Amino acid sequence: MPSVTLPAEPPTPPTPQTATPRSSRVTCPRLAARVTTAEEAAALVRDGDNVGISGFTGAGYPKALPTALAARMRAAHERGEQFRVGLWSGASTAPEADGVLAEAHGISKRLPYSSDPTLRREINDGEVEYVDAHLSHSAQHMWFGFYGHLDVAVVEVTAVLPNGLLVPSSSVGNNKTWLDRADKVILEVNHWQPRELEGFHDVYHGTRLPPFRAPIQLTDPLQRIGEPYLRVDPAKVVAIVETDAPDRNSPLAAPDDDARAMAAHLVDFLRHEVARGRMPANLLPLQSGVGNVANAVMAGLLDSEFEQLTSFTEVIQDGLLDLLDAGKLVGVSATSFGLSPTGVRRFMDDVGSYKGRILLRSEEISNHPELVRRLGVIAINGMIEADVYGNVNSTHVMGSSIMNGIGGSGDFARNAYLNFFVSPSTAKGGAISSIVPFASHVDHTEHDVQVLVTEQGLADLRGLSPSARADVVIDRCAHPAFRDQLRDYVGRARRERPHARHTPHLLAEALSWHQRYLDTGSMQAAPTPEEGRG
Amino acid sequence: MPSVTLPAEPPTPPTPQTATPRSSRVTCPRLAARVTTAEEAAALVRDGDNVGISGFTGAGYPKALPTALAARMRAAHERGEQFRVGLWSGASTAPEADGVLAEAHGISKRLPYSSDPTLRREINDGEVEYVDAHLSHSAQHMWFGFYGHLDVAVVEVTAVLPNGLLVPSSSVGNNKTWLDRADKVILEVNHWQPRELEGFHDVYHGTRLPPFRAPIQLTDPLQRIGEPYLRVDPAKVVAIVETDAPDRNSPLAAPDDDARAMAAHLVDFLRHEVARGRMPANLLPLQSGVGNVANAVMAGLLDSEFEQLTSFTEVIQDGLLDLLDAGKLVGVSATSFGLSPTGVRRFMDDVGSYKGRILLRSEEISNHPELVRRLGVIAINGMIEADVYGNVNSTHVMGSSIMNGIGGSGDFARNAYLNFFVSPSTAKGGAISSIVPFASHVDHTEHDVQVLVTEQGLADLRGLSPSARADVVIDRCAHPAFRDQLRDYVGRARRERPHARHTPHLLAEALSWHQRYLDTGSMQAAPTPEEGRG
Repeated sequence: MPSVTLPAEPPTPPTPQTATPRSSRVTCPRLAARVTTAEEAAALVRDGDNVGISGFTGAGYPKALPTALAARMRAAHERGEQFRVGLWSGASTAPEADGVLAEAHGISKRLPYSSDPTLRREINDGEVEYVDAHLSHSAQHMWFGFYGHLDVAVVEVTAVLPNGLLVPSSSVGNNKTWLDRADKVILEVNHWQPRELEGFHDVYHGTRLPPFRAPIQLTDPLQRIGEPYLRVDPAKVVAIVETDAPDRNSPLAAPDDDARAMAAHLVDFLRHEVARGRMPANLLPLQSGVGNVANAVMAGLLDSEFEQLTSFTEVIQDGLLDLLDAGKLVGVSATSFGLSPTGVRRFMDDVGSYKGRILLRSEEISNHPELVRRLGVIAINGMIEADVYGNVNSTHVMGSSIMNGIGGSGDFARNAYLNFFVSPSTAKGGAISSIVPFASHVDHTEHDVQVLVTEQGLADLRGLSPSARADVVIDRCAHPAFRDQLRDYVGRARRERPHARHTPHLLAEALSWHQRYLDTGSMQAAPTPEEGRG
Repeated sequence: MPSVTLPAEPPTPPTPQTATPRSSRVTCPRLAARVTTAEEAAALVRDGDNVGISGFTGAGYPKALPTALAARMRAAHERGEQFRVGLWSGASTAPEADGVLAEAHGISKRLPYSSDPTLRREINDGEVEYVDAHLSHSAQHMWFGFYGHLDVAVVEVTAVLPNGLLVPSSSVGNNKTWLDRADKVILEVNHWQPRELEGFHDVYHGTRLPPFRAPIQLTDPLQRIGEPYLRVDPAKVVAIVETDAPDRNSPLAAPDDDARAMAAHLVDFLRHEVARGRMPANLLPLQSGVGNVANAVMAGLLDSEFEQLTSFTEVIQDGLLDLLDAGKLVGVSATSFGLSPTGVRRFMDDVGSYKGRILLRSEEISNHPELVRRLGVIAINGMIEADVYGNVNSTHVMGSSIMNGIGGSGDFARNAYLNFFVSPSTAKGGAISSIVPFASHVDHTEHDVQVLVTEQGLADLRGLSPSARADVVIDRCAHPAFRDQLRDYVGRARRERPHARHTPHLLAEALSWHQRYLDTGSMQAAPTPEEGRG
């Protein structure tokens, strides 16, 4: 067998020592002694540190430490000193985490996903380096040593048990990895999180580094393969901060006409696939990205004939609670909640009824290629734009500005049984076409994209060459205001490069729609194609 | 548990009936009765059929049937009749398979990979539809029903055993799937293939359709998880054709200076990773694409201090035999041979010594995301071009013309422990830069690309933002003749779009290098940047 020089898993925490707990949520005597203020905890973070925080889609992020840290950073900056950290997370957090640190100009590098508007501006201004990684890769690349050393973990939990085990919070994300790998650990114990969350998590402790990896023995979305707790070496815990603050919990707008139309196309297509024997009658485990379209799809399924559904996804939105409540969904595996305030209330009011039907896992498991492929997930993700050949851009505006990041869309789309990318056919009041000649950034290649959906219709790209895809995408998905312009592009590309027709392009024009938008505020061409050239 | 309406695995072949074998290689009495000529067998293929053939990298493809089928096609065309088939394979075949059928204009659609020059021309002329798929996806998408119905399988084997089991040939590819799923099966028994190939294969028969999939219990590249035989329902075998013809076996040029330089950069980098504790001393299982650079890397490893190496790859080239012979390589798992004539002779002369050290598997297993990630493969693949932000084009020339296809590069790169993309920094005598501002097609996204290698040097992109990558790629990998031009592009993009600096681009210029090549025969800009605009 090959030799190995790589780090092993951390040891099991030692037996707790005797002392009196200082909080009803921190009942481990040894750790209770670490309870302190956010300000004192923040003093343990130094300029240049890499800091791994909890948080995924605005759930389970630290509520107090980032604000205290941001105050220290601002004070340092006022003294003319540098104070910035590398910030690693599960995924997006909230104004009290990414937001306050970005406003303090305290982030030097950020990974693997963020959606904060202040941080986005700093990334696009070139102030912050952003490493936009597949969420299934982030934990392992950290273990492999590809991101450098992790100095501090700041992880929100629901409670600390007498034996030192941690009851996770409303997301798991990369918390296991941050706790295992950081030199110092700061815990935030959030009393707002329902104490009944204990038992909703399945933290897999079987990950190893190659060449010592074993199969992950999960064959059903709701199967337990881990334990309900995070572990931490108590010797590494330098501070515990108690909080009582809600998750971000953005309100959810009711689906608009476009979202309902997209959901209807998609649900009809699933029906069509079942009818042709290409999918079981209860479908396959559903994954859907975050947002109104995803929620509209869940609403569409609620009104459908489908029963005994399952979900293997990243985030639990209100639509999944609706399906659970209606008895249409057997259960859901995810890495995080992402509920509206109404959804949170609904969950909290009846938390016991969801136990066993909701499991939160580490994001390396929720998004694991091995599991997504084995289970045969149906992946539904949003996009910014697609080109007529089926290359999808999920991350960049006009080729250069980051929007949020790729998140788990690549993990799910590449390994899915069937994948969908959905977007309204236009943006900015019709000035932008979501269907373009050439994607200004490619996150999902033609080899990985199966079905495109807009409010106009659905394009099934399976088994089609790029050139054949173009006709289908234009006819089914493009907005009528852009169809002729797209047909004109593809038609001229076929004629002008008759020996380059696999993926017809006019390279001098391929990105002209985007340039025209930058120049004129609209992708709409001037009356003749010649004038429309960028 | 969910219900299912999907097809099950085929039944075990029934007990053979009594009859006298007609060939020393076809010892199953029932099947021996099916031995016939290529011409008679070809008469069983109809216009419009989908035909699944064996063959991977010029090994194990049918040698006789395609030529006979092509003759029928030409005759039909001369009579004014249509005769074309959809052609599915493992990967590339040879002039006697893809070549003759393309010359007869007998292919309507081709998947998942090809490298035949005649077929390439027909694809680029728009005559043939080409579906360029990840090799790990091709078998499952066929099972899912995404490619339509498979009418005929034409599979080369080494022998047919008395019990009807098939000894596979010099590649396995998608043969299991074609045999399981086709209505009719035509076998070619090739006496040129060494009879001693029996025992070199490990055909996994445990694949299922979701929701019935189980973990693949492979944890070591050389572990057996299947059986050495392909199975076929004898009732489906409509013809057996005997042949005695060599595989394509292209001669291999000695590595040139560029290939040796790239190999040296790569091997040095592996050494560097081991020294930093990021990799075991015997590395991790190696995968390398086909060609001279891959072979040069193997030659570089042969001269290195590395011992006890393993390989989990697609194709066994001469360089791997060298490592086996030198005792540096414990063994290799692949789906196909891809030896030179010298390599074939070497293998045949000492076939017994390689048994247990070489395993050929189905390509859905050799390339399986689950296994590539679990084993922690080091993936080394060629590319056509990369942009300065680390997006890699493996398939298209100047954005539109297919070269070969993505093959397994995406399967390995996405799931690898560490991936490399290698290419000389220029092509066409220096007229083309392999490092460009914007990849004219993206097969591997910035999220998936870790290390770029040219003869100039090596760019380690791990943990860098796109903008930071640009500086490293230009400094380390671009040819000196193009460096200033690349720096000028990135510099102006940063200045002219100061709030879009995540991935700096000037969209009106982004593809101008490619357009300039089409217009002038060179990507070299005219003296001032302004004049260089496409």
